Amino acid sequence: MIIRPPSNWFRMLLVWNGSVLPSILPQLALILAISVAALLGHGRILGERVPLDTAPFPLLGISLAIFLGFRNNASYQRYLEARQLWGHILAAARTLTSQTLAYLPAERLDHARFARQLVAFVHLLRHQLRGTDAGRDLERLQGPEAVALARARTYRPIMALNDMRRALQEACAGLPGGAQTVWMLDVQLNNLADAVAGCERIAGTPIPYPYGVLLHRTIYAYCFLLPFGLVHAIGAATPLIAVFVAYTLVALEAIAQEIGEPFGTAPNCLALDAMSRTIERSVLELCGQPLPPDAPVGKGYQID
Amino acid sequence: MIIRPPSNWFRMLLVWNGSVLPSILPQLALILAISVAALLGHGRILGERVPLDTAPFPLLGISLAIFLGFRNNASYQRYLEARQLWGHILAAARTLTSQTLAYLPAERLDHARFARQLVAFVHLLRHQLRGTDAGRDLERLQGPEAVALARARTYRPIMALNDMRRALQEACAGLPGGAQTVWMLDVQLNNLADAVAGCERIAGTPIPYPYGVLLHRTIYAYCFLLPFGLVHAIGAATPLIAVFVAYTLVALEAIAQEIGEPFGTAPNCLALDAMSRTIERSVLELCGQPLPPDAPVGKGYQID
Amino acid sequence: MIIRPPSNWFRMLLVWNGSVLPSILPQLALILAISVAALLGHGRILGERVPLDTAPFPLLGISLAIFLGFRNNASYQRYLEARQLWGHILAAARTLTSQTLAYLPAERLDHARFARQLVAFVHLLRHQLRGTDAGRDLERLQGPEAVALARARTYRPIMALNDMRRALQEACAGLPGGAQTVWMLDVQLNNLADAVAGCERIAGTPIPYPYGVLLHRTIYAYCFLLPFGLVHAIGAATPLIAVFVAYTLVALEAIAQEIGEPFGTAPNCLALDAMSRTIERSVLELCGQPLPPDAPVGKGYQID
Amino acid sequence: MIIRPPSNWFRMLLVWNGSVLPSILPQLALILAISVAALLGHGRILGERVPLDTAPFPLLGISLAIFLGFRNNASYQRYLEARQLWGHILAAARTLTSQTLAYLPAERLDHARFARQLVAFVHLLRHQLRGTDAGRDLERLQGPEAVALARARTYRPIMALNDMRRALQEACAGLPGGAQTVWMLDVQLNNLADAVAGCERIAGTPIPYPYGVLLHRTIYAYCFLLPFGLVHAIGAATPLIAVFVAYTLVALEAIAQEIGEPFGTAPNCLALDAMSRTIERSVLELCGQPLPPDAPVGKGYQID
Amino acid sequence: MIIRPPSNWFRMLLVWNGSVLPSILPQLALILAISVAALLGHGRILGERVPLDTAPFPLLGISLAIFLGFRNNASYQRYLEARQLWGHILAAARTLTSQTLAYLPAERLDHARFARQLVAFVHLLRHQLRGTDAGRDLERLQGPEAVALARARTYRPIMALNDMRRALQEACAGLPGGAQTVWMLDVQLNNLADAVAGCERIAGTPIPYPYGVLLHRTIYAYCFLLPFGLVHAIGAATPLIAVFVAYTLVALEAIAQEIGEPFGTAPNCLALDAMSRTIERSVLELCGQPLPPDAPVGKGYQID
Repeated sequence: MIIRPPSNWFRMLLVWNGSVLPSILPQLALILAISVAALLGHGRILGERVPLDTAPFPLLGISLAIFLGFRNNASYQRYLEARQLWGHILAAARTLTSQTLAYLPAERLDHARFARQLVAFVHLLRHQLRGTDAGRDLERLQGPEAVALARARTYRPIMALNDMRRALQEACAGLPGGAQTVWMLDVQLNNLADAVAGCERIAGTPIPYPYGVLLHRTIYAYCFLLPFGLVHAIGAATPLIAVFVAYTLVALEAIAQEIGEPFGTAPNCLALDAMSRTIERSVLELCGQPLPPDAPVGKGYQID
Repeated sequence: MIIRPPSNWFRMLLVWNGSVLPSILPQLALILAISVAALLGHGRILGERVPLDTAPFPLLGISLAIFLGFRNNASYQRYLEARQLWGHILAAARTLTSQTLAYLPAERLDHARFARQLVAFVHLLRHQLRGTDAGRDLERLQGPEAVALARARTYRPIMALNDMRRALQEACAGLPGGAQTVWMLDVQLNNLADAVAGCERIAGTPIPYPYGVLLHRTIYAYCFLLPFGLVHAIGAATPLIAVFVAYTLVALEAIAQEIGEPFGTAPNCLALDAMSRTIERSVLELCGQPLPPDAPVGKGYQID
Repeated sequence: MIIRPPSNWFRMLLVWNGSVLPSILPQLALILAISVAALLGHGRILGERVPLDTAPFPLLGISLAIFLGFRNNASYQRYLEARQLWGHILAAARTLTSQTLAYLPAERLDHARFARQLVAFVHLLRHQLRGTDAGRDLERLQGPEAVALARARTYRPIMALNDMRRALQEACAGLPGGAQTVWMLDVQLNNLADAVAGCERIAGTPIPYPYGVLLHRTIYAYCFLLPFGLVHAIGAATPLIAVFVAYTLVALEAIAQEIGEPFGTAPNCLALDAMSRTIERSVLELCGQPLPPDAPVGKGYQID
Repeated sequence: MIIRPPSNWFRMLLVWNGSVLPSILPQLALILAISVAALLGHGRILGERVPLDTAPFPLLGISLAIFLGFRNNASYQRYLEARQLWGHILAAARTLTSQTLAYLPAERLDHARFARQLVAFVHLLRHQLRGTDAGRDLERLQGPEAVALARARTYRPIMALNDMRRALQEACAGLPGGAQTVWMLDVQLNNLADAVAGCERIAGTPIPYPYGVLLHRTIYAYCFLLPFGLVHAIGAATPLIAVFVAYTLVALEAIAQEIGEPFGTAPNCLALDAMSRTIERSVLELCGQPLPPDAPVGKGYQID
Repeated sequence: MIIRPPSNWFRMLLVWNGSVLPSILPQLALILAISVAALLGHGRILGERVPLDTAPFPLLGISLAIFLGFRNNASYQRYLEARQLWGHILAAARTLTSQTLAYLPAERLDHARFARQLVAFVHLLRHQLRGTDAGRDLERLQGPEAVALARARTYRPIMALNDMRRALQEACAGLPGGAQTVWMLDVQLNNLADAVAGCERIAGTPIPYPYGVLLHRTIYAYCFLLPFGLVHAIGAATPLIAVFVAYTLVALEAIAQEIGEPFGTAPNCLALDAMSRTIERSVLELCGQPLPPDAPVGKGYQID
């Protein structure tokens, strides 16, 4: 995720970091080449005049607007929901920690150990979603046996929640009012399990594939035809306008694609690293333990 | 559901598997034929010039944009909700299993048997939604009597939930704190029952029929008239543009139709088989049982 | 509600049952007459040339698109929410039945009688929403005294829920753990009461009236002016295009109007009869009682 | 709120009551005057030809469509949410009444008195939202001391809920299972408190002010320029088209403004009077008390 | 937040306070200068005619409409959600206060002190979201030690909630039915914690950065090119139309930017000061304590 301080309206026109412009330069160069060819050839291909004017473009524009609008909204919805799920994880982790601290005496539950178990769950989920290896985080928090245990498992965050449920059940057993405490804590575990299922859903079910194909084809057909449609109307301005129109369309497609896979590692995906760190810090502060430093801000204002 | 790894922007223009193009070729061929006829006949039918230009098409375009946008959004909403419901089923199945493991001792409940009962419920729901026969899955999980019992029933997943409620009630009866455990488990059963009702709603109440008729007629009237409107403006480019516009419209209608019936078996419907398998695997892992293999990926990246 | 099996793309162009075309033929005939008059009179009224071309129509089109899109979405939202509420009723009725069966012994509650009471509540709600007489259903389920009792009441479904709450409270009184059972059942009664309030809201608060007036006037003004705008541009094609544009606009308005009152009895309203029957069948199956037949499919694939 | 029976499509074109036309006649008259002036002056101001044609209007149309669509949706969303909140109040009031009747014996709680207390809360909320005086309703329900007490308070509905919580707590104290009953009733009180907060939010936080200014200016600039843009293209039809376009834009703005303040007293605001009366009637029927008459329908089908 | 009484339609055209016009005057002046240059130079730059007409602008308009519509909706959604979260805080704070008053006797909990603790939490959250110093509010409510304690903490509102949970747990310990009271109060603390997490999410995760860049560039490119596209069509009216179109686009971008960071201090951000004050007043009134005055209305109808 890129977080930049707001800048002056003029400087924002020239921003490079955080814009998707770098990643779509090849396509824009191709469209520039086509535009220049159309301009120099007076809209002819192999000596034959391409019989296009601007009339057909609004017709294609209807489809384009529907596809782009839909794709962008669907992607943003996924991004937003993914962020909300991680917000729920933060809230549930804090509440669970605060509840165990208030309702379970230290002789029934090792609070620091339980907090590390909870934080390990969060890291396990992040690594599962990103397809990365949780080994280092697990070892740091729970020692090498936890690494080995996790490696032998398939649905790791869920198994970690299962361990936590068992630990809490044991801590409450026989405590006066313990049955009720179990239930209060169980509710937070369920919140975490629901968030896990939500994240798996987003990660495992992308926007239906043919939407992407259809949008992609429509955009490029539109952009490749545009210079021939414009050249008789606006002549020398054709490359400028054609490339600018192409920039807006291709850039939006590129953004929507990044945003639509919010757990990826592209620059505009969610900052799962930083969010896990925040959860870790907040849980540890509740337990009165020292806090690790905040997640660093990378090159180009990027936060992972 | 089709899940393909992301490909280069150029190769994506030529994708065949996962595109809906194959299924709409006949219609596009017809529109190509009309376009060529309009071109060769200089926009005449039986020697009479069809007095159309591009002016009326934006007027039709308003309706078209509203219909297409609405239909597509409504279909995607159904798809998304269906997927969410199956996510809830996954979460509730895991939670229910984890709860029974933590709160009910093995002498009160045969956990492996209950897990199979739960997994059988999931398969029953899938088979009901797809109109397929649950026999093989039931026999594999619960033996032949379960098949006979299910065949004698009408609302099978609900009856299976009813059996599970009764089993849990018996397992808790007389247990200290058992009344409370019953309630905790009851909540998860209700989550499952709500998901069943939600799936039945989506399967049983399609998008109102006249929307489809109206959209269908508008698209085809638009596409059949378009060549005559374009031929005087862009001449030889008419077939290209007319077929491309038709492709975008007809393809979106086709996608929306598939997506709008998310429990079907078309290539872009939900992968209920794979999702049931995931639930089965996750529930079994919680119980410490061996896991069946993951669902296979079919031809053309398709997952059922 | 009309549920038709999907048909071939060509046959769907000619569908009659399930289309709203029959109900808007008079208006389309009028617009056809205006178009022919405009064509024969060369766009003159009383010898005076109507000075219109196609330029003003896109200006009106903006308003038209906003009004139509809004009206359609608002109506569909109401339809969808109404359907969801009935889905909640189905789920709550099943859960309540299953809970009473599992948690209340037969000597405390006559399960068959309670199931009939629950089903009667559903029918009372349906009859209230449609303004029809519940007598026959009540008599069939609960005998003639229930009919007399209901007639003396104003908010009948709510009073029926109140009776059920009292019956359950009496059945649980003194039962070990009964206080908790009362609460579990109370939750389902509240779900039913919430659904009742939701249905009353949809039935009692239509989309604000002036939206309908404004949309209606805009559509007809647009359609009546269109022939005079088109006649100089496309001549003999005017009636075809004008009637087709009018068809798309008037048909969408007609669909939105039907859908927006989802509890009505127009062909595209919700199939409350069939849904009540499904609830009745599912509740009775849970109680192990014989099932009445499913709701019949009427003429033209219509389900009430 | 205006509720009119559906009328024939032709009569609906001529509806006066329920349309916003009366309230925007002055603005339309001004635009008519400008149109006629533009027509008579052949598009000149002080002898100088205004160099406009229809080309710039679609450019302005983009902004206009976004502003109008947004404003209208945002307003309708507020209207809908306000109505839903009052639906929740209805449901919670009924449930609370039914619960006290079933779970609290008459010797612990004076049910009729509590019902009046509950109904008074509803009226207090209505009067707070509308800025009217609750005196008459309070006196009718609870006598003159309640009026004096309410006058001394600031957040009256919340204080009334607080009184009710205390009364219920006292009624349950010492009752077997009373602690649980307290909680069940507390849940409904919280539902009411949430609805109060929701209503206060809608009433206290309007749609951000600059949206309204921007939309207002765009509409009027558009409408004032339109006659000069149209006059060279459609001549004598200019006043007709310009006034009709203005009517659609100004009327939608007017409707959105009324709807966006759903607790106001304009003709299309929510019928809070009638809804309070329904709640009162339904609560009293549950208590077996005589029902006051339904809210009257005012002039022009208006319900307050 | 700016709350102005509704004004006459004509005066609203001339509103200055509450409009974003003042903040975008420099950009509009630049576009005016370009327009005038284009007009005086007859659309030439360095003697070379810029070969633009109005044809390319609708093509750019598609992207512009999608970007602007999306950005505006996404921003408003954030604004609305932020407001809803503060509504939840209000509701939970009131409910928690009312519950402690009804269910905890004064000898177990110092109600006035707890109320100040609760109000301090609200101020802590506000100061964290705005990045301001909570010292004065904390000192006023809880004395200087609370200031020092808060300064030593990182996630201050959450730590405050943790203190409250502990205080309530101690107050209930040993009370008959206390375990249940703990849970009822715990639910409200969780509501507050969820709202904190929601606010942190909105404050910490802005709308993805490249959307802003893309929209910004599209708007300015459109506005800078527009005069050259218009000058040959509408001549002397170019500056008027170009500046007005620019006004609508730039103003909407400016509003969306303010609204999209709802916890900021720009004129159209949420009135967190006033809302905290309302919560304080309502909580104190419940406790029967004197109320501080309402938040003042600032210059230009602005409320902080």
